[in-house]
Amino acid sequence: MKFSVTVTLKKDVLDPQGKVVQNTLNSLGMKNLKSIRQGKFFEIDIDEDNQEKAEKLVKEMCEKLLANLIIENYKIIKL
Amino acid sequence: MKFSVTVTLKKDVLDPQGKVVQNTLNSLGMKNLKSIRQGKFFEIDIDEDNQEKAEKLVKEMCEKLLANLIIENYKIIKL
Repeated sequence: MKFSVTVTLKKDVLDPQGKVVQNTLNSLGMKNLKSIRQGKFFEIDIDEDNQEKAEKLVKEMCEKLLANLIIENYKIIKL
Repeated sequence: MKFSVTVTLKKDVLDPQGKVVQNTLNSLGMKNLKSIRQGKFFEIDIDEDNQEKAEKLVKEMCEKLLANLIIENYKIIKL
């Protein structure tokens, strides 16, 4: 069972990496860019047929390792 | 107009970062994990009301800066 997970910085947390990308895009001439924020993306393949159990496992992975819950949010999507 | 962009390594490209995450999750006791691959995620806000134009702009950003088309694929989703 496959899931995608996106981990993004919370709204009020500064995103220096995204800022650099934004400045670079601006200097490439993209004037219409309002904002860009960068996050992490994971594609997870779980060996578990029960969707509920699999989702619980992915949630546990996010909370134990993939996301820092103090500054980041995560979103799990079943593929 | 908001878009999300995910940039992932192509199928046959090695993903050492994902491998480390996989090993770490295994050593945390997650035995059901088949595979995990890591990518990049961007949330882009464009100052453009015409959806077609905005999408073209995001595509240009991906190809000029965000993704390395030799080893990476990108996917644009309108939010």
